Amino acid sequence: MDKTKVLAKIAPSRSETASARKIARDTQNSLERHLPGNVKTALAGSVAKGTFLEGAGDIDLFAVFPKSYTKEGMFKKLENAAKKAFPNAPRETGYAEHPYLRLFLGGKRIDLVPSYKMKPGGRVKSSVDRSQLHTEYILGKMKPAQRREVLLLKQFLKANLLYGAEIKRKGFSGYLCELLVLHYGDFEKVMEAASEWKLPVALDPEKHYGPSRAIPDFKAPLTVIDPVDLTRNVSAVITRDNLGRFILLSSSYIGNPSEKYFFPASMDREELREKTEGRFFFALCFERPDVVDDVMWGQLWRVAGRLESFLKKAEFVVLGVHPYATESSCLLLFELRSPVLPKTQVFRGPFLDQHQHISHFIKKHTPPFFFEHGRINAMEDRKLRDISLAIDRFRKGKNFPSHFQHLAQKAKFFAVDSIIEDYPLALEEHFMVNWVPR
Amino acid sequence: MDKTKVLAKIAPSRSETASARKIARDTQNSLERHLPGNVKTALAGSVAKGTFLEGAGDIDLFAVFPKSYTKEGMFKKLENAAKKAFPNAPRETGYAEHPYLRLFLGGKRIDLVPSYKMKPGGRVKSSVDRSQLHTEYILGKMKPAQRREVLLLKQFLKANLLYGAEIKRKGFSGYLCELLVLHYGDFEKVMEAASEWKLPVALDPEKHYGPSRAIPDFKAPLTVIDPVDLTRNVSAVITRDNLGRFILLSSSYIGNPSEKYFFPASMDREELREKTEGRFFFALCFERPDVVDDVMWGQLWRVAGRLESFLKKAEFVVLGVHPYATESSCLLLFELRSPVLPKTQVFRGPFLDQHQHISHFIKKHTPPFFFEHGRINAMEDRKLRDISLAIDRFRKGKNFPSHFQHLAQKAKFFAVDSIIEDYPLALEEHFMVNWVPR
Repeated sequence: MDKTKVLAKIAPSRSETASARKIARDTQNSLERHLPGNVKTALAGSVAKGTFLEGAGDIDLFAVFPKSYTKEGMFKKLENAAKKAFPNAPRETGYAEHPYLRLFLGGKRIDLVPSYKMKPGGRVKSSVDRSQLHTEYILGKMKPAQRREVLLLKQFLKANLLYGAEIKRKGFSGYLCELLVLHYGDFEKVMEAASEWKLPVALDPEKHYGPSRAIPDFKAPLTVIDPVDLTRNVSAVITRDNLGRFILLSSSYIGNPSEKYFFPASMDREELREKTEGRFFFALCFERPDVVDDVMWGQLWRVAGRLESFLKKAEFVVLGVHPYATESSCLLLFELRSPVLPKTQVFRGPFLDQHQHISHFIKKHTPPFFFEHGRINAMEDRKLRDISLAIDRFRKGKNFPSHFQHLAQKAKFFAVDSIIEDYPLALEEHFMVNWVPR
Repeated sequence: MDKTKVLAKIAPSRSETASARKIARDTQNSLERHLPGNVKTALAGSVAKGTFLEGAGDIDLFAVFPKSYTKEGMFKKLENAAKKAFPNAPRETGYAEHPYLRLFLGGKRIDLVPSYKMKPGGRVKSSVDRSQLHTEYILGKMKPAQRREVLLLKQFLKANLLYGAEIKRKGFSGYLCELLVLHYGDFEKVMEAASEWKLPVALDPEKHYGPSRAIPDFKAPLTVIDPVDLTRNVSAVITRDNLGRFILLSSSYIGNPSEKYFFPASMDREELREKTEGRFFFALCFERPDVVDDVMWGQLWRVAGRLESFLKKAEFVVLGVHPYATESSCLLLFELRSPVLPKTQVFRGPFLDQHQHISHFIKKHTPPFFFEHGRINAMEDRKLRDISLAIDRFRKGKNFPSHFQHLAQKAKFFAVDSIIEDYPLALEEHFMVNWVPR
C-alpha cells in the first residue's frame, strides 16, 4: 500500500495550513486588543499541533485568565472582547463542562474557550484547562514526521466510524491518536500493536507508574494514562465493542494493508437493496430533540440499549443496533433475524424445592407446567409475537429519557424500503459497524 | 380424604398375607432339607416386614451360608437344593451384584439369594448381605400400625412413577419408604416434611453422626443414612428431578389431600388425542435388547440424555423426554415445542481480542460475521432445520451404547398417531412425569 497516496488525500495542503494559522493569529490579535492586559490567548487543538485532517482545520483558541477571575467573569470578558473585535461574525454559546464562545470567521469554526493558566502537574479545574497542557505536551514531544502518522491513524479510525470521543461515537479522541503514535512510533506500529492487544490493555507513555506503584485499575478495557495528569485515563470513553472492532481491523490491515481501510467504497441504494434482501430491518424514527449533541446522543444510546434488551427479553434475535441522526431526525436502526417468533414461549421457573418461588411462579403463569432437570417451566401463548406488537408495547413503557418522552408516540416505524429511501447512510453505517465484512 | 378407603384397595387381604407367608415357609422347609445343616434360610423383603402392596407379595428368601463358602459354592449348593426340592418349578438365574435363583411357585415369584451370615455393624460384602440387616432392623423398630403408613407412601409413589430404586425409575426403594415412615412417624408427616424440604436434605435416623461428627457429603440432593451401615446413603439413586417432583406432589397433597394421588385416572386414546392436539411428539422405537433390565435401562437413559443434549444444541426446545419399554420394545419419547426451526442459526463467537479463537472461528464459519457487545458471531443457514434431519444425523453419530448400537439403524421414527396407537401408556407416563397438571 502506498501511504503517500493516502496522505495526498487526507493531509491539508500547505496553503490550507497556512490559512488556518493565519486566521487563528489574526483572531488572537484582534481579541487581545479588547481583553485585559493580563489575559493571553493561545492556539490549541489539532491546528496548533499540525495534526488536523484536510478540511477539519477548525480552530480552538484558549483565553488564559489569571486565577483571580471567576468562571462567569472570564466568559463575560471574552464575550465582550469578541463582540467588539468581530461585531458582524455569527456567534453562538456552546456548553461543554462550561460555556464557551463559537464564532464563524472566514469559513472556519472558531471556538473561544475561557481557561485558567495551567502549570504542568498543577491542579486541573476542568478538561478545558487540561487541553492547554495536552497541546504543549504534543508540541514538545512529537517529531514533525509523526504528524503524518497521526493523520493516517485518524483517517483509518474516521473511515471506520471509530474516530471521536463524543458520546455519539465513543471512539478515539484526536489526543489519543497522537499519544498512540508517540508511544508506538508510527501508524504501522500502532496497527501491529493493536492487532495483538489482549484486553484489558494499559499504557503509561510517561511511566508515571512503575514497579513500586502499579497503574490504577480504571475498569476500562483500554487504559492510557494521560502524560499530563496521572489520574486520568485518556481512553476511558471507548466501548469494548469499538475497541474490539479496532483490534480486528488492525489485524486485517496488518494481514493485507490496503487503501480501502482509509476510503471504504460507499454503497448506493441499489447495493443496499441487494444487501438487505431476505433480511429484516426496521427503524424507529424520531424528530431530533433540541438539545446539545452529547445529551441527545446519550439519550439516544440509552433508548437503543433499552429497546435491545426489551427485544432480547421477548426472544427476538437481535443482529445489530445502530443509532443514527441527521440534523432533523434521530433513528434507531435494528436488524433482527426475524420479525416473527414462535407461537408459544417457554418461561424457565425455579427449582422444585424453592417453595416460595414455586408458588409465585405458579400464580404468575398458566398451567400446565413442565419439568426440566429439577425445575418447573411454563409454556404459554406468546404475547409479543411480532415486532410491531413489541414496539407498541415498548412505546407504552417508561423507556424514554426526558428529551425523547414527548417524541416517542409520534415516532415512525420505518420498514427497510423507507430506510433505504430516506436514510441510506444509516444502513451503510450499520453494515460497517455491526458486520464484517460489512 | 378417607385413608381407610385407600388402604382397602392397596393392603393385601389377610388371606393374601397368610398365603404368601405359607408359601415362603413351605419353600424354606423344602429347601433346607436339601441344604447342608449349617445353612439356614430366612424370609426377607416386604413380605417378611409386612409392608407389601396388594398383589406385590413376591418372596425374597436368603440362604445364609457360613463365611467358609465361596460365592460360586453358595450358588451351586442353592441351585442343587432348588432342583431337588422343586424339580418341576420354572427356574431362572438372575444377576444383581451376584447371581441368584428365581423360582415360580404357586403363582408367586420367589427369589433365592445366597448370602453370608451378617452381624449388625459387620463388614457387608454385598448389598444382598445388607438386606438381611434391613429386614431385622425394620422388624425390630416398626410398630404394626406403621405398616399401613408404609403402604400409603408406597402407593403414593407408585401412582406417580416414583417408586422403585431400579435404574428404570431412580425413585424411592421400599426400604427407604419404611425408613421415612419410621423417621417422621406416619404417611401424613412424611408428606408434611417433604413438602418443606429444601435440598439438599440429610436425614440420619439412628443418629450415627452428631455435633462432633458431621454427616459426610454424599453429593446427593437427598441423603438418608442407612441405620445398619453408616457409610451408605439409602437414597443415593434418586434423581433431583424425581425428588423435586416428590416435593411438589407432597405439597399439593398437603394443600388438598385426595385419593387421586393414589389412583390417578388413566387416559384413553381419545383423551390422549385431545391432549396431544397442536403439540409435537415423536418417539424413536427400538427393538428391546436382550440384556438384564438395569443394563438396558442404564443404556436407554444414556441415549435419552444424549439425544436431549443433541437436540438442545441444535436449538430445538425440548419440553420433555420419557424413556419407556415393553417386553419387546424400547421407546424414547420426546415432546418438542416445534419440529421445525428458523432457517438461519446464530453461532456465538469469541471476544474480539481472543486472537487465536477469532481466527479459528472465522475459518470454521461463513462470513459475514456480526458483532455483539465485543464478540463476533456468525449467522448461517441452519443444517438441522427439522427433526427428521436431526434424528438422521444423531443416528449417524457415535451415540449408542453397546446394546443399542446394532439396533439404532433399524429404530423406527414414530409420529404421535402411531405412539397413541401402539404405546399409549408411554404418552400417559410422559404427561405424568413431565407435566403438572399432567
